[in-house]
Amino acid sequence: MTEDLLPTLAAYEEAARAALSPRLAAYFLAGAGAETTLAANQEAFGQVSVIPRHLRDLRGGTAQARVGNLRLSHPLIVAPFAYQTLLTPEGEIATAKAAAAQGALMTLSAQSATLMEDVRANGPSCLWFQLYWQTTREATLALCQRAAWAGFQALVLTIDAPVNGVRDAEIESGFALPNGARAVNLTDQPQPNFAPLGEGESAIFDRIAHIVPIWKDIEWLLDNAPLPIYLKGILHPDDAALAMKAGAAGVIVSNHGGRVLDCAIASLRALPAIRQAVGPNAMVLMDGGIRRGVDIFKAIALGADAVMVGRPVIHGLAVAGAAGAAHVLRLLQDEFEIAMMLAGCRTLADISPECVHLNW
Amino acid sequence: MTEDLLPTLAAYEEAARAALSPRLAAYFLAGAGAETTLAANQEAFGQVSVIPRHLRDLRGGTAQARVGNLRLSHPLIVAPFAYQTLLTPEGEIATAKAAAAQGALMTLSAQSATLMEDVRANGPSCLWFQLYWQTTREATLALCQRAAWAGFQALVLTIDAPVNGVRDAEIESGFALPNGARAVNLTDQPQPNFAPLGEGESAIFDRIAHIVPIWKDIEWLLDNAPLPIYLKGILHPDDAALAMKAGAAGVIVSNHGGRVLDCAIASLRALPAIRQAVGPNAMVLMDGGIRRGVDIFKAIALGADAVMVGRPVIHGLAVAGAAGAAHVLRLLQDEFEIAMMLAGCRTLADISPECVHLNW
Amino acid sequence: MTEDLLPTLAAYEEAARAALSPRLAAYFLAGAGAETTLAANQEAFGQVSVIPRHLRDLRGGTAQARVGNLRLSHPLIVAPFAYQTLLTPEGEIATAKAAAAQGALMTLSAQSATLMEDVRANGPSCLWFQLYWQTTREATLALCQRAAWAGFQALVLTIDAPVNGVRDAEIESGFALPNGARAVNLTDQPQPNFAPLGEGESAIFDRIAHIVPIWKDIEWLLDNAPLPIYLKGILHPDDAALAMKAGAAGVIVSNHGGRVLDCAIASLRALPAIRQAVGPNAMVLMDGGIRRGVDIFKAIALGADAVMVGRPVIHGLAVAGAAGAAHVLRLLQDEFEIAMMLAGCRTLADISPECVHLNW
Amino acid sequence: MTEDLLPTLAAYEEAARAALSPRLAAYFLAGAGAETTLAANQEAFGQVSVIPRHLRDLRGGTAQARVGNLRLSHPLIVAPFAYQTLLTPEGEIATAKAAAAQGALMTLSAQSATLMEDVRANGPSCLWFQLYWQTTREATLALCQRAAWAGFQALVLTIDAPVNGVRDAEIESGFALPNGARAVNLTDQPQPNFAPLGEGESAIFDRIAHIVPIWKDIEWLLDNAPLPIYLKGILHPDDAALAMKAGAAGVIVSNHGGRVLDCAIASLRALPAIRQAVGPNAMVLMDGGIRRGVDIFKAIALGADAVMVGRPVIHGLAVAGAAGAAHVLRLLQDEFEIAMMLAGCRTLADISPECVHLNW
Ligand SMILES: Cc1cc2nc3c(=O)[nH]c(=O)nc-3n(C[C@H](O)[C@H](O)[C@H](O)COP(=O)(O)O)c2cc1C
Ligand SMILES: Cc1cc2nc3c(=O)[nH]c(=O)nc-3n(C[C@H](O)[C@H](O)[C@H](O)COP(=O)(O)O)c2cc1C
Ligand SMILES: Cc1cc2nc3c(=O)[nH]c(=O)nc-3n(C[C@H](O)[C@H](O)[C@H](O)COP(=O)(O)O)c2cc1C
Ligand SMILES: Cc1cc2nc3c(=O)[nH]c(=O)nc-3n(C[C@H](O)[C@H](O)[C@H](O)COP(=O)(O)O)c2cc1C
Repeated sequence: MTEDLLPTLAAYEEAARAALSPRLAAYFLAGAGAETTLAANQEAFGQVSVIPRHLRDLRGGTAQARVGNLRLSHPLIVAPFAYQTLLTPEGEIATAKAAAAQGALMTLSAQSATLMEDVRANGPSCLWFQLYWQTTREATLALCQRAAWAGFQALVLTIDAPVNGVRDAEIESGFALPNGARAVNLTDQPQPNFAPLGEGESAIFDRIAHIVPIWKDIEWLLDNAPLPIYLKGILHPDDAALAMKAGAAGVIVSNHGGRVLDCAIASLRALPAIRQAVGPNAMVLMDGGIRRGVDIFKAIALGADAVMVGRPVIHGLAVAGAAGAAHVLRLLQDEFEIAMMLAGCRTLADISPECVHLNW
Repeated sequence: MTEDLLPTLAAYEEAARAALSPRLAAYFLAGAGAETTLAANQEAFGQVSVIPRHLRDLRGGTAQARVGNLRLSHPLIVAPFAYQTLLTPEGEIATAKAAAAQGALMTLSAQSATLMEDVRANGPSCLWFQLYWQTTREATLALCQRAAWAGFQALVLTIDAPVNGVRDAEIESGFALPNGARAVNLTDQPQPNFAPLGEGESAIFDRIAHIVPIWKDIEWLLDNAPLPIYLKGILHPDDAALAMKAGAAGVIVSNHGGRVLDCAIASLRALPAIRQAVGPNAMVLMDGGIRRGVDIFKAIALGADAVMVGRPVIHGLAVAGAAGAAHVLRLLQDEFEIAMMLAGCRTLADISPECVHLNW
Repeated sequence: MTEDLLPTLAAYEEAARAALSPRLAAYFLAGAGAETTLAANQEAFGQVSVIPRHLRDLRGGTAQARVGNLRLSHPLIVAPFAYQTLLTPEGEIATAKAAAAQGALMTLSAQSATLMEDVRANGPSCLWFQLYWQTTREATLALCQRAAWAGFQALVLTIDAPVNGVRDAEIESGFALPNGARAVNLTDQPQPNFAPLGEGESAIFDRIAHIVPIWKDIEWLLDNAPLPIYLKGILHPDDAALAMKAGAAGVIVSNHGGRVLDCAIASLRALPAIRQAVGPNAMVLMDGGIRRGVDIFKAIALGADAVMVGRPVIHGLAVAGAAGAAHVLRLLQDEFEIAMMLAGCRTLADISPECVHLNW
Repeated sequence: MTEDLLPTLAAYEEAARAALSPRLAAYFLAGAGAETTLAANQEAFGQVSVIPRHLRDLRGGTAQARVGNLRLSHPLIVAPFAYQTLLTPEGEIATAKAAAAQGALMTLSAQSATLMEDVRANGPSCLWFQLYWQTTREATLALCQRAAWAGFQALVLTIDAPVNGVRDAEIESGFALPNGARAVNLTDQPQPNFAPLGEGESAIFDRIAHIVPIWKDIEWLLDNAPLPIYLKGILHPDDAALAMKAGAAGVIVSNHGGRVLDCAIASLRALPAIRQAVGPNAMVLMDGGIRRGVDIFKAIALGADAVMVGRPVIHGLAVAGAAGAAHVLRLLQDEFEIAMMLAGCRTLADISPECVHLNW
């Protein structure tokens, strides 16, 4: 890791790939399976082009976004990702500082290697906490409550990973969590305690399926949780509609950065039908494959209210810690505003499907 | 060959390619001609993406498949392939043990290098025998009867190779069957005895066409054979309909793994029209290009009741004999169940065209 | 050049590329401009797949083709190409022997480096003579008459090269016709004698356009020529219709193997609309990009009565002279018959658009 | 730089890439961002093929184009590009000489490193002057008037770069304008003098948006300017219609050679809808991605009255100064006339959408 800032987003990506050990690169940068979805996420952006508009009055325009009851200076949110101490000593606190410096909303991962209370204390803009279902309703609710006490303002419930994806690269690299990196916020959570599999039983259907949540559980949680909850990992329009009907604060269109089901549809590809399904007023976020500011523009044109970014922040952290992450966020925001101007859009509301040309 | 198991399906493929001599690699891994169809089989899978569904109740789900009167724990069948003693000393018996260990139905190739009776004796789940037409009706029926006596429960008649494909890679590598590898089950079968070609005669139309079966022969065989027969190698919907009308137990959509007619349509591409042609109740299997568990999911979504795999089993055998083949089957099954869960499917009946997005 | 025969068509191509000097490779193998059309010709074939049919009665089938009043044993014709003595000492005579050995109709190029009478004498199946317009009607007719006297049975008038294409590869390689290779049949033909260009005059429109033929000239020639004439180089359906209306014996869909207008449409791509335009009875040949027997099948499925091949014959000549050319023709024919059988086609009439699947 | 002329357009491109220092190559040859648009410009041409027509009477044909009240011998215009003294010592004067030698209209860049009066004096065909908006109406008009006094006959107002694109390659190469290369025609122009950004203010929307022109300004300029004005950088049909309605002399469909908004739609892709929007009589030029004469043909077929070329002229200048630029223009013109002949087009009016086949 070097403290030097790099000139471009591409340079951060390249340098991060070089800076990380093969095992850490496999964990942080690779995707599941043959990385079809990881690649498809970016390819989908490549198939969308922008049709610039000119000579409009853009004075007093703004990139401000409204997400729930938050007014963000940009529609760029730091995605939750695990074990950030593996990237830079300060870990999640470095990211929180970077996010605050750039006025970007940050989502803290359930698998944070730093206590959520400590991150909140150092992260004025780390206002969202991400969690997974915790085996039981009560345990899940308890975690939500702790996040509320810690001062988080909304929750992100990630529902797309009831099982781990098959992560070839990680497996082949021999990655294992090093000592010291632990999900410190989950130490008290109940762990599933599975009976050994009997003849003809399936680990998936006869064990795991018994501890993962179903819609009824989610409805219960949405009714009882102290904070609004976004459901993260939605890719099908019907699931998006169910989520909104159940009372979710919004949906996050995501395939977990290509880390769970390889061959899952690219997030951007799934986005338009989801916006269509939930109507213009529902909150729809998306992530997966955003690497440049113009990608934020494309996602919004195809229906997102705001976007999350994972890998680019990882690149920044790996190269130059908090300063690197902050710089990456800055570059993305600047590029996004430039794209808005060049496309003739004064506000996010101007960014519509008419601004883009689809090659798919 | 090493006895060490490898961590991923991709690792088996790579290691097998390295472990096999160039000649054996040309025989087992290459395809006909310019390998257009071999590649197309996999590319077709790459053009299908899965749309995950979440939060459904999957308890008590199962990957069980019904194929004819067999209830299989998974819809994964070992395809028939020839001369397995070239891959591992135990040959077909190794594969039969692997299949039994994983509860996978195995199809024994007519060109088995091991006596069918011996394989049956060692292979509780080696229940299908594959054969080609044997020059005459009687010889073909005799082979069917021998398979029935040996305890096989169904037959697979491969109809897509009345002539050999033009296998450039094999030809260029100088591949020839080594001593010891022989089609031991066919030693008594009649061999065609062709008169020399006269002026203007064609080997294809004036010789081979006289000994290959036509629909009438197949109808006769289906009427007289002691076992149900699947027709393997169907790619046209009309042929599928004819097969079912003639009384076949089912059809196997296949281009022989790209080994016969180079430029034949990819199996997956041909599948939907065939399912359409034969209706929802006919048994439709498919093979060609399946390399990951999620590919099984895609094939079922597009109409298959179950799938066969060839090359992946070859990879396992080449790398680590019976243990390798068993491990490959295990990895495929596990990945398939994971894909089912991530796509929200409790049983095979839930896996429908709505689960996938086609990019073709 | 070696006299050894090679095992596959691909091996001939590779060996020819290695055997030819860079300059000769540039002349014989390269295409015009950025070789977009050269590549597109082959890519178009790659986008067509064949849907095999099975279990049909193919006894007594045949690959015979009728082209004009000729009955050919295969629909495979040697395309006219220039200066064959640069490839093998015997030049066009080598090709003529090869064609005769394989029963393939051969077309002698106007730019033959061997006297047409000598080739005819050695070439029982060299029955077509190709020519370009010769500056004047009379000179063109005289050349036709000489071909008739020499015993040719039909003429191929190539109309797609009123100017040379821009052949980057040739230009960059410094290719120039070596001593000894000359268009010996054209030595008496009138050469255009152009006045120097005046201010604002265009070589194309004010000189060359004055000596190239127009439809009226072609009509005159078709009326007066002693032999039936095929027009070679047609790519637009309207030109095909005009040709047939003017009395041509048929049209040859061709872009001159990608050697004239780079970015011209691929021949195969142009074929269906042309067949559509001229109706089922007109003779339609095609060339460009055929490298395997199955390509012949595809061309016929999309509307051709027969095909011409250029480069593959060049490969054979470059590698092993007459024997190489004969072997290449043999391999193509064998592969074609195999494709017919695997696609369930007894005669060329069975090869229809329903036999193929288009990915374009 | 060498004074030797090269044989092909591709050779100029390759040699220029080698001749320029990495920094100059980054400035002159690279594009913005990940160079998606730079590549897309050329790829769009690759997706268009030409359908040749034959045997038409082309005598007295011509490549002449009418652009405004100019009659050009070819529809090939030199695009405005900055700081040409970095490419060859004579800079813009070299280009002007080359253009004059080939009868090509040249557009002088506002960022010319040579005084506009000097270029005009040496450039009988350097008749267009390109400018950007100069902060105020008055300053902009003054620049127009100076160009009129200097003898330019039309103006090109480039509207697609209110902010600089994010030019990764330039940034990474460390490019900065060397001493001596300055925009000498703009030294007296007012420079924006921005107040420091306050909390929450955006450089884009709260500063730059205040000094860039809007349609009202353009209307004012079109009303008051002493010369006809073309608007350069239009990509949306509605902007094209607005431009014509406002009184522009014509529109230039362009994405600035992929140097401003990366992911902007390819120019050629945008062209047909723009021609459609403005009707057959409006002047529509285009640039971006033209590398061969046949590309000019394609652009005209899809709706352009004439085209501009940037990079090819840069290649010529970099390799061999004025002589190189002249040769590149000559090669492009010759190839274009050849393409016209091979496509059977006597005049530009014959070049219609029917002449091409779109693969997009
Ligand atoms: C190393 C890594 C760890 C992640 N951990 C989590 C996590 O703990 N919880 C979660 O909801 N998403 C997690 N994600 C997914 C991200 O939140 C996000 O969906 C994804 O990174 C977006 O794609 P992108 O990386 O292309 O921007 C993780 C992603 C990465 C790369
Ligand atoms: C080396 C090899 C030998 C084969 N031998 C036979 C055979 O004897 N009979 C048969 O019906 N299919 C045979 N096949 C085809 C397979 O049954 C199956 O259709 C094909 O391998 C499926 O494609 P995949 O390898 O991509 O899974 C063979 C395939 C291979 C690779
Ligand atoms: C080196 C070479 C020379 C050729 N010379 C002629 C010729 O003299 N007359 C002609 O009509 N076509 C000529 N052609 C074009 C061929 O007749 C034919 O159209 C083309 O080669 C078909 O494409 P293929 O090479 O992909 O089979 C020539 C082609 C090549 C490669
Ligand atoms: C190095 C460079 C400098 C340029 N400078 C200008 C300029 O000053 N003004 C302008 O309107 N366009 C400028 N352009 C854009 C060109 O006018 C033109 O739109 C573009 O080069 C066309 O694409 P092409 O290079 O693919 O032909 C510049 C282009 C390049 C490559």
